[in-house]
Amino acid sequence: MIGRDEYAGRMARAADAMAARSIDCLALSAGSDLTYLCGYEAMPLERITLLVIGSYGPPTLLVPELEAPRVDTLDGLFEVRPWADGENMIKVVASALRRACPPAPFIAVSERMWAGVLLGVQDNYRHARFVPAGRIMQPLRIRKSPAELDALRAAAAAVDSVVDTFKSIEWLGRTEAAIAAEIASGLRAAGHERVNFVIVAAGPNGASPHHTPGERVVQPRDAIVVDVGGTVDRYCSDITRVVCVGGADPVVGRAWEDLRGAQEAATGEVQPGVTAASIDRVAREMLGAAGWGENFVHRTGHGIGLDEHEDPYIVDGNDHVLEPGMCFSIEPGIYVPGSFGLRLEDIVAVTDDGVEVLNRVPHDLLVV
Amino acid sequence: MIGRDEYAGRMARAADAMAARSIDCLALSAGSDLTYLCGYEAMPLERITLLVIGSYGPPTLLVPELEAPRVDTLDGLFEVRPWADGENMIKVVASALRRACPPAPFIAVSERMWAGVLLGVQDNYRHARFVPAGRIMQPLRIRKSPAELDALRAAAAAVDSVVDTFKSIEWLGRTEAAIAAEIASGLRAAGHERVNFVIVAAGPNGASPHHTPGERVVQPRDAIVVDVGGTVDRYCSDITRVVCVGGADPVVGRAWEDLRGAQEAATGEVQPGVTAASIDRVAREMLGAAGWGENFVHRTGHGIGLDEHEDPYIVDGNDHVLEPGMCFSIEPGIYVPGSFGLRLEDIVAVTDDGVEVLNRVPHDLLVV
Repeated sequence: MIGRDEYAGRMARAADAMAARSIDCLALSAGSDLTYLCGYEAMPLERITLLVIGSYGPPTLLVPELEAPRVDTLDGLFEVRPWADGENMIKVVASALRRACPPAPFIAVSERMWAGVLLGVQDNYRHARFVPAGRIMQPLRIRKSPAELDALRAAAAAVDSVVDTFKSIEWLGRTEAAIAAEIASGLRAAGHERVNFVIVAAGPNGASPHHTPGERVVQPRDAIVVDVGGTVDRYCSDITRVVCVGGADPVVGRAWEDLRGAQEAATGEVQPGVTAASIDRVAREMLGAAGWGENFVHRTGHGIGLDEHEDPYIVDGNDHVLEPGMCFSIEPGIYVPGSFGLRLEDIVAVTDDGVEVLNRVPHDLLVV
Repeated sequence: MIGRDEYAGRMARAADAMAARSIDCLALSAGSDLTYLCGYEAMPLERITLLVIGSYGPPTLLVPELEAPRVDTLDGLFEVRPWADGENMIKVVASALRRACPPAPFIAVSERMWAGVLLGVQDNYRHARFVPAGRIMQPLRIRKSPAELDALRAAAAAVDSVVDTFKSIEWLGRTEAAIAAEIASGLRAAGHERVNFVIVAAGPNGASPHHTPGERVVQPRDAIVVDVGGTVDRYCSDITRVVCVGGADPVVGRAWEDLRGAQEAATGEVQPGVTAASIDRVAREMLGAAGWGENFVHRTGHGIGLDEHEDPYIVDGNDHVLEPGMCFSIEPGIYVPGSFGLRLEDIVAVTDDGVEVLNRVPHDLLVV
């Protein structure tokens, strides 16, 4: 669990980062940035919750009156200011920002604040300049603390235990949707308080990387891409394996060995000092050399933490240098339209001198 | 089900509304506005999906390359333009908008577009002026079509069937969280493809209207606020009832009769031509007269459709006039900090000459 001291330290580092970048005010609406700094999980609905850390006054959480009883201030780490239904929300926000800011301020707002709110506040506070809060929050969140690493390890262990049950699932003759529902139940039973996604993509559907499980009935010899994740104590799990019913077709089996080689080689390159793009390049070059270049249609991975996808992105062009504590997926794939798809994904953490693979499920095709 | 003709009609009405309001381009990211117009459910992740309806060219869906296989264009109702990992997303968006727009355009963007995207596009397209898309989409979405009303009736029937099972749930001695998990399973079993929320707030926790179910064990004589909802074929259900274990305390029983009177009186006032605020006023005045004025800390209701909360909001100050086809909740509550909470909620639809109550569960306290 993340304790009060860790939240206090995060708030202090955010204030330092604001000073270093001449940001007068940080305004975080519902989402992981807000939770990261003060521990509160705001409801992502139309009534705004906003953590305001400004030049004047203590950090303040603007919160809908009916949700004020949900807030734990962690012994006064921040103040709570409820606002009521019937008040003009945009004016409430603009006024809270004005109180916290010097004239003509730079205000950093959540990347995921609703555009309707931002446009309204821009209209009601014309002397303020708004910038994305990523420049403050990303450097804080991208390196995980020891407590966060423990949380991500626990999430990985929970999802691994669900993949371990795949061999006892009845696959043949059932729909993707029915199998996905069973796996979702398994995720909850294994300690996930939220299921983020369950992709079950059988046979040719596997060629659609983000396929929605549907009415296709699993056939003998189907390769089935299974990509699942959720949250355990707020931190995300994410893993992909491929299930083969009654054994793999030879072409699928050979493609899997190519994919596994690329995934493991990319993982082996992870260490402090190399760039995110270089990890992507390793996987891409190996799959290209094996003849699958056109069939690998997405980046190699994404960071993970409070959000299922966050920095660092393991993608061409991202020259961000890896540092200890960064966590991300390594998940190359091979997609052959009309025929089959394959993806192999683990979550890894950068250590002081290399890499820790958080998932422990073997890399074999899962023949059932 | 909503068919191609209905989507085509919606697109045509959106174009009319744009012309009437001198909007040159509509830019809708993942969310209900996008789904409403073209039927596609975009993934709400960091890779943007954007429906662009502009002055030049056909309606175009900008979509991450790996998700392009998920898109059904409804027989050419719109074009698909995939963009690839490694491209600069903000530049891809700005360029798509420029292609669709005359010089110095007004562009209406989704209310829920991410602020980080909007700020980036504002920086990369300085001659454009951005406004919230609500002014185009809200008038379209606020009156439900016959097919949408059928979908909302089906969602209400599904959630009603779950409330009907409450009498056979084991309440006493179990935690709120365990009961909530059981109800969530029930929602899925009753046909909800997504569970939006399950509030189970026992005894004094009921005084927190948006309480998160936790470790409190249900005690004899607890009044338990149960507020649940999800989606059935994309349309939302939402209902609140109160369960009393072993009978109600006299003060709770009397408060319930006051609440029930206010909820039913407000429902009785619903008809075309009255304002949203007037419905709120009926509930508020009745609870005030009964001595609960300070204990009713939220608006009376919210619209419902593809979103769990949408226009029209039944709240003080909202002079929007009700019209046939509008659907919303009527859900007054009484909250006594440290003691108990009560809320009674149905979804209603405005008819040609009055009101249709979509939920059919009786309004009694559910004594178990």
